[in-house]
Amino acid sequence: MIEKSKYKLLFDIDSPADIRDFDAATLKTLCCEIREYMIDVVSQTGGHFASGLGSVELTVALHKVFNTPEDKIVWDTGHQAYPHKIITGRRDKMTTIRQLNGLSGFLKRTESEYDAFGAGHASTSISAAVGIAEANKKLGNAHKKVIAVIGDGAMTGGMAYEALNNAGINKSNVIVALNDNNMSISPNVWQISNYFTEMIAHPEYNRFKGAIWDLTGKLDNFGDRLRRVASRLESGIKAIITPGMLFEALGFRYFGPVNGHNISQLVKLLEHVKAFNGPILVHILSEKGKGYKPAEGNKEKYHGVTPFDKITGKSLKESSGKPSYTSIFGDAIVELVEKDSAIVGITAAMADGTGLTKLADKYPENFFDVGIAEEHAATFAAGLATQGVTPVVAVYSSFCQRAYDQIIHDVALQKLPVVFALDRAGLVGADGPTHHGTFDISFLRTVPNMVIMAPSNEIELRDMFYTAVNYKNGPIAIRYPRGNALGIELKEGFEKLEIGKSVKLKEGSDVAIVALGRMVEYSVEAVESLVEQGLSCELIDARFAKPLDNLMLDDLAARFDKIITVEENSLVGGFGSGIVEYFNEKNYKNDILKIGIPDEFVDHGTQAELHRLLEIDAEGIVKRTKLFLESVVAKEIV
Amino acid sequence: MIEKSKYKLLFDIDSPADIRDFDAATLKTLCCEIREYMIDVVSQTGGHFASGLGSVELTVALHKVFNTPEDKIVWDTGHQAYPHKIITGRRDKMTTIRQLNGLSGFLKRTESEYDAFGAGHASTSISAAVGIAEANKKLGNAHKKVIAVIGDGAMTGGMAYEALNNAGINKSNVIVALNDNNMSISPNVWQISNYFTEMIAHPEYNRFKGAIWDLTGKLDNFGDRLRRVASRLESGIKAIITPGMLFEALGFRYFGPVNGHNISQLVKLLEHVKAFNGPILVHILSEKGKGYKPAEGNKEKYHGVTPFDKITGKSLKESSGKPSYTSIFGDAIVELVEKDSAIVGITAAMADGTGLTKLADKYPENFFDVGIAEEHAATFAAGLATQGVTPVVAVYSSFCQRAYDQIIHDVALQKLPVVFALDRAGLVGADGPTHHGTFDISFLRTVPNMVIMAPSNEIELRDMFYTAVNYKNGPIAIRYPRGNALGIELKEGFEKLEIGKSVKLKEGSDVAIVALGRMVEYSVEAVESLVEQGLSCELIDARFAKPLDNLMLDDLAARFDKIITVEENSLVGGFGSGIVEYFNEKNYKNDILKIGIPDEFVDHGTQAELHRLLEIDAEGIVKRTKLFLESVVAKEIV
Repeated sequence: MIEKSKYKLLFDIDSPADIRDFDAATLKTLCCEIREYMIDVVSQTGGHFASGLGSVELTVALHKVFNTPEDKIVWDTGHQAYPHKIITGRRDKMTTIRQLNGLSGFLKRTESEYDAFGAGHASTSISAAVGIAEANKKLGNAHKKVIAVIGDGAMTGGMAYEALNNAGINKSNVIVALNDNNMSISPNVWQISNYFTEMIAHPEYNRFKGAIWDLTGKLDNFGDRLRRVASRLESGIKAIITPGMLFEALGFRYFGPVNGHNISQLVKLLEHVKAFNGPILVHILSEKGKGYKPAEGNKEKYHGVTPFDKITGKSLKESSGKPSYTSIFGDAIVELVEKDSAIVGITAAMADGTGLTKLADKYPENFFDVGIAEEHAATFAAGLATQGVTPVVAVYSSFCQRAYDQIIHDVALQKLPVVFALDRAGLVGADGPTHHGTFDISFLRTVPNMVIMAPSNEIELRDMFYTAVNYKNGPIAIRYPRGNALGIELKEGFEKLEIGKSVKLKEGSDVAIVALGRMVEYSVEAVESLVEQGLSCELIDARFAKPLDNLMLDDLAARFDKIITVEENSLVGGFGSGIVEYFNEKNYKNDILKIGIPDEFVDHGTQAELHRLLEIDAEGIVKRTKLFLESVVAKEIV
Repeated sequence: MIEKSKYKLLFDIDSPADIRDFDAATLKTLCCEIREYMIDVVSQTGGHFASGLGSVELTVALHKVFNTPEDKIVWDTGHQAYPHKIITGRRDKMTTIRQLNGLSGFLKRTESEYDAFGAGHASTSISAAVGIAEANKKLGNAHKKVIAVIGDGAMTGGMAYEALNNAGINKSNVIVALNDNNMSISPNVWQISNYFTEMIAHPEYNRFKGAIWDLTGKLDNFGDRLRRVASRLESGIKAIITPGMLFEALGFRYFGPVNGHNISQLVKLLEHVKAFNGPILVHILSEKGKGYKPAEGNKEKYHGVTPFDKITGKSLKESSGKPSYTSIFGDAIVELVEKDSAIVGITAAMADGTGLTKLADKYPENFFDVGIAEEHAATFAAGLATQGVTPVVAVYSSFCQRAYDQIIHDVALQKLPVVFALDRAGLVGADGPTHHGTFDISFLRTVPNMVIMAPSNEIELRDMFYTAVNYKNGPIAIRYPRGNALGIELKEGFEKLEIGKSVKLKEGSDVAIVALGRMVEYSVEAVESLVEQGLSCELIDARFAKPLDNLMLDDLAARFDKIITVEENSLVGGFGSGIVEYFNEKNYKNDILKIGIPDEFVDHGTQAELHRLLEIDAEGIVKRTKLFLESVVAKEIV
């Protein structure tokens, strides 16, 4: 429950128009209230937290200065968009955030006209903003402003640089608000940020600034030749007293740095730059977690949170007692690196999310965080592999989409043994459609030389991972879901699996179910229920999506009329499609029911809710198996 | 025929070891001979030309100074690698380049130990080099040097920046040789290059350099405070008198610029930087086409060539008289922009290759070359689309792999009407596996909201393109092949096609062939031959790979026992797979033979040779159809 009475302003703000006349003091109060409200809400709902706290003043200043929604704010990634949602008419729905049918945790065009461009993946905002700016130019709306708000973490992504470069070439009317907290999701991944920090942190910075202008003033009296020198000096000096040279080389006018928590300064600077045309970069220094003590002390932990106690900051989520696949993987890589120091872990600014922090702590020499740079990660890994190092690229399934060309062109074509550990494969739950990992089997299966595995429990994950680091014939991917494993007892050590070999979990005669990855767990449950209902079900844990276990499939084809495939991937081109392709190739005529994700983007909700809605949970499998067994052949071929 | 007698040195060079003792004058002679030999060879064989001419001295200097193949040279893209091939034991095989079973036109690890890393797509070299450098560090080989050679064009690609950033963070022992000809494939796509040019071209550059050092010398006497200021000034000055600031912000030491055609200077500079550790950038100014007059005058034309007359530079290739799909597309977009100025063409440094030069010339306001930046291109287009502009992203099929995540996350998820014109879809011929566009149907088909078309002739291409720019429900892709269209007469204007609707080209009763895109032409030919042999064949031009024409498929399922699909895409997850998926869904039991690209990387050769080898040409279709019709069902279901 939100205690509305403690808010003086917030509940009168229904759109940004309501704040445009506020004076500095009122804006400051509003910022306090937004922060308070964020803490109220997120402590109840969970969600992305520290980034939003760090961008309260920036959000308010942007909506105060610019004429949204005519002027467009394009938020990068969307972790920081909660304050924006609160003041753009979604205040009262904030308690539904990330829940089924509730507000999205990210930006979403269909949710609000203030969400100029959807996001979820990083580094896209400048590209989209340049597109909007060029459209404005083209359609006679050049007076409309476009602002991309991007964090320093997202600036490590190559497409942000591509967009800066292109904006410079186009001379696009775009304002890039670089929200620099020198602490993206993981710290120290942007070299330029180190350079900024060095530049700005220097104690003499301000004194020096004054002295230098004095000096050039004096030089100005030295006659013509020196006057020219002096004017050159000025530019040189500008380069060293502002960190903006980099952006100026890219064709941007640089302004800043400015304190991102000083609303008056922010408003003043934004008012100032609003008058200019062409590419502008405003450099804003802010602090993630600002205004909530526990988060200020531990920004990484409070990046995304489960519901917590407002006073102590402690999570209220009860532990299931089961380890996550992520942590099983994180432990396994440490164990394997202990035995073989040629194994290295690579992540793209997701050390925590992929479980690699343990490796980073214990074996920093075997760990690389390359920034939000999946393209580089894959080719960097390929380079390592040419020399006999065993690289493990740990990224989320949906982010792996970023490295698709590199996987084809740099890894698979050269048959380089790179291991891809794809976390968050399948439906991720509350993060929704930008983060669901429901395409990886399809897009990887079409790549020659690729092996794709999916574990059905934590022991299989360990064994698959061990198999992967010992596989030297080309790339190999393991996809595993977000969330908890089964909680079964681990075995000592690892077992090497035979590539392409499935496991029969249960013998049966009425129908055969071939399940992959997390769907094995649901299928076991479904089979139990079906057996109780008098059906004899065979159950296979496929383990591999590529290569398939052809001998097993031949056997099923011979013994069953009806076969069911179950996967947590798109039905288009996925695991079941592979089986259907094989049956077609062999001219087997069995009936096959494919259970999986339909050809659509799936919204957010809990994983269990989404599985239920899509009928890919145990209950869904039972229901659909029964319908399938009852069905007659749809038509007779003449 | 190569006239060997005119070469004094070249035919004694069998490996780089043979040049390591050469003095400056001999190296210079060698460079002349390499250039002469390149002209001799490429005028006969065709191939990438101007880039190689521009990097002769750099190649020789690198192999002279560094201990290849222990030290690794990673060439970006590979357009410039001919001189490298010539002096690394492949001189005599150069006349086989880009031909079936001959040398690859790009780098290839299996071809030579001197090819440290394969390439074909741009901007990958720094990533691979950083991987090799970190592996060296890890495996106790830190003394081995790694050099990435990258052009200014490839520096527009985001992953180059990701790699620079990561090298800075890692302090990797990598030397980046920036081969800057300010003329990548298309000019003016790298803003920093403009900045360089401005900086370096300034007439006062050298005089100023001297004056400024004098001045700081004097300031040094002003006492302590000013001495500190002076030392700061020095850094500032360094920034304005070298263009290296950008790279220094990224953690690199910058050296240069140096004349890339002065072999002595190059050797001296490389010897100098060889002694340093950590990330180093060497800035080399060179001229594409250097040393061959016709190419110096027209760098874009001589980027890649067909066999030509050495004296005049004129192409010896006889025109087929048929227009290419590329030029049909290039004309069509101009025609459509004439009618609707809200249509814009976007390319990723491939204006010529995609046929957009006509648009660029005639309607520069409706044309964007974003650099080698496919990721940005897609999201930039999405931004344009949000405002009602109709963006047409024209890229090669294999480069579209770079934009996969953006197509999913920024375009399809938001259902934005972006048109993707995918040139070079299918087997591209001489460019080989890095450039074959044989996966696009598979990876796009799994993306929800996506429409995928493929024209069977130039009229269909025009009509599909017209259909695409008028389609407002989401992204739509047209894939078409490299090479000539049929040469049929075009119709006036355009016709809007019904989404997902196929065309029956011929009625028949023994077998139905459903062909897509270029494969329709071969299928027509095959059907003629089959009819002559007494078979009654039905032939469908599918037009759409997604959505499929379900009514047509229902009809075929009812009328034919045996159905054949023909496509120029991977059989894994491709067009035929979509049909097999549909038949499975409907529980149709027809026999289906899928003809297409098998699950492997296809080498280089002419398109006709590759089609023949893979049995996807008319003859192959005839042969396989007959075998298919003779075959009995492989097994009987119990």
